[in-house]
Amino acid sequence: MNFDLVRKLKQENGSKIVLCVLDGLGGLPRPQTQRSELEQADTRNIDRLASVSDLGLTIPVGLGITPGSGPGHLALFGYDPYEFDIGRGVLEAVGIDFELGPNDVAARGNLCTLDSSGLISDRRAGRVATEVSTKIVELLRGIQVDGIEVLVEPVRDHRFVLVLRGDGLGAAVSTTDPQRKGAAPLLAAGGDTASAVTAVKVNDFVAQATELLRGEEQANGLTLRGFAKYPHLPQYQDVWGLRAAALAVYPMYRGLAKLVGMTPLPCPDGMEQQIATARENWDEFDYFFIHYKKTDAAGEDGDFDAKVHSLEEFDRYVPALRDLGADVLMMGGDHSTPALMAAHSWHPVPFLLHSRHVRGGGGEFNETDCARGQLGTFPAVEAMALAMANAGRFEKYGA
Amino acid sequence: MNFDLVRKLKQENGSKIVLCVLDGLGGLPRPQTQRSELEQADTRNIDRLASVSDLGLTIPVGLGITPGSGPGHLALFGYDPYEFDIGRGVLEAVGIDFELGPNDVAARGNLCTLDSSGLISDRRAGRVATEVSTKIVELLRGIQVDGIEVLVEPVRDHRFVLVLRGDGLGAAVSTTDPQRKGAAPLLAAGGDTASAVTAVKVNDFVAQATELLRGEEQANGLTLRGFAKYPHLPQYQDVWGLRAAALAVYPMYRGLAKLVGMTPLPCPDGMEQQIATARENWDEFDYFFIHYKKTDAAGEDGDFDAKVHSLEEFDRYVPALRDLGADVLMMGGDHSTPALMAAHSWHPVPFLLHSRHVRGGGGEFNETDCARGQLGTFPAVEAMALAMANAGRFEKYGA
Repeated sequence: MNFDLVRKLKQENGSKIVLCVLDGLGGLPRPQTQRSELEQADTRNIDRLASVSDLGLTIPVGLGITPGSGPGHLALFGYDPYEFDIGRGVLEAVGIDFELGPNDVAARGNLCTLDSSGLISDRRAGRVATEVSTKIVELLRGIQVDGIEVLVEPVRDHRFVLVLRGDGLGAAVSTTDPQRKGAAPLLAAGGDTASAVTAVKVNDFVAQATELLRGEEQANGLTLRGFAKYPHLPQYQDVWGLRAAALAVYPMYRGLAKLVGMTPLPCPDGMEQQIATARENWDEFDYFFIHYKKTDAAGEDGDFDAKVHSLEEFDRYVPALRDLGADVLMMGGDHSTPALMAAHSWHPVPFLLHSRHVRGGGGEFNETDCARGQLGTFPAVEAMALAMANAGRFEKYGA
Repeated sequence: MNFDLVRKLKQENGSKIVLCVLDGLGGLPRPQTQRSELEQADTRNIDRLASVSDLGLTIPVGLGITPGSGPGHLALFGYDPYEFDIGRGVLEAVGIDFELGPNDVAARGNLCTLDSSGLISDRRAGRVATEVSTKIVELLRGIQVDGIEVLVEPVRDHRFVLVLRGDGLGAAVSTTDPQRKGAAPLLAAGGDTASAVTAVKVNDFVAQATELLRGEEQANGLTLRGFAKYPHLPQYQDVWGLRAAALAVYPMYRGLAKLVGMTPLPCPDGMEQQIATARENWDEFDYFFIHYKKTDAAGEDGDFDAKVHSLEEFDRYVPALRDLGADVLMMGGDHSTPALMAAHSWHPVPFLLHSRHVRGGGGEFNETDCARGQLGTFPAVEAMALAMANAGRFEKYGA
């Protein structure tokens, strides 16, 4: 919803909001059983909670749109993912816990294979092993570009992050990736004066890198895309009036939370520690984002049983989550990752909201019952307005 | 929906539309029984109608938004409540049946208590009794402000309406209410030239009033907010092609209906008279808005049983409402007022549409069955398009 309206309606009342994101939560039924992962799993604690909650399905970004982690989370945080488009370079940097400065320009890099004519024969360098690509990245660190600092960080396989650090750089730099085999990497070009200067430096870097990698077998070239600066998103405290904490194990999600002004708290060991950390910091914050990764990982692996198992594991933490005593407790997902697709998908995602103002009576926590729930099928970006209302943090609109 | 499109699609066919607004209709289940007011009430006539109607839940303004009566009704009338924002001063004036002229500027006034330093110690003057505040308002009527006419009208308790009448006044005048205790009332300021002139007159009025009230114990000060002129909303006949009548007992709802070009017909004695008046004027109008207040009043009082009773009372009028023989009969609410909250709320509101073109089979008229109905959960502002379609008053869109 419109942030000016949020700022106008919000009021402070000391209430607490908890959002649990089960990454890639939604699924699809196995043809043999006609049961989805959630329907198969023994999630008795969630189902007990569901019976005293309002249920619905969230549309992560738009009908038919399969979101990445960035837009999926931003929507649940209340940020329109079409309006707030986080550059790929920034997401990659955030995902490896790289601290971007305000003037840095970050890009997502791919190592690739060039043939003897300099045309791309493999866009991902045969998904080169991380130990090989890490050494290559170390080579690239030796590159000097006139007037700026160049930082290169490995990510995984063929992926790396390039950061240009210096004054007056622009991020409106075009991709060097021709997006197909048999073409040469493109020269970067700038969309404005600062970015034109930056593009020259990017091309200088690429030329030196290609020279350095000439002897490599697999990864003798590279492409760059998603040039972006650290975005200045409206901050949680300012928009929603909430001091927000993020309890996430993986850097990507801590980074996303930081983008909107949440404070990531250390909890590297997983759910038990995440919940304990929330409890220890209960008085310092009004909003707690708790991220659970295993559902998505199992879904991406195409492992139906592992996804069922991950849901059952999460379910065992539900009593402790309820014991936190939040005024509003939400459980949802940033997108669906059906094991049958082994990938993110566009399917609406089961969502549950518990507070003392719910109608309840909606059934169990799965795709079928959530579609018939009190909340209906609604845009994920609206979930925060529901949370604020249920927390008593919105004044009446109009007389 | 877009009014240009409405104007393009609308066609005249002599059909009749009735909208019954049960004010504050939606509720929440009592924890002991898990039944809402509607589920508890014996509403056999509505339920019989529901079985041959399409059901749904309307979102009054937006998910999580608790509307006042103004936006809640405008939405059901087909007006986007974000686009058509009726100033508080106008709503208050309308609510006491005060006839605003086209150049008048109206403001909502609050009597307050000032301490010996002139700081607000009670923003509502201890909710001073109406008989006391009415006398105070009579005192204020003696105030003369240079070049304009000043009209003051009591509302109830600490509330009153101030109307400035004269040429060239502006309504972009800032509030004098600091919105907190311990602060002095603010000086009004104008956002444009005409409003700056108006603000000077407002401040003159406030200074004189504060002088006059110096001796009062409770109500020795005042604040003003919601400065507004009578808005020029698109009119029902022009937009929808409907000659519209309003059957409402309370001035606020007659006034809201008048804002959109409906003709309020006198029916001070309640439902029986409202229905009879609709019947007597059946040929003169195409659309009838019938307002039922008791559901909201009971909800606001936090009286679950009284709300159940008010629903049962309404139910007894349903046969007579059906006997009117409208082509489209809608029943809905401007917002929820759960007795358990004793206040307006954001919860979607049960909605029913009966015509000879419905799918039906949706169940009974309550929060649970409506959530699973043919119409789903949808914005209240779209209800008028459904009514027009079911009345055969929209042409086909495109070939």
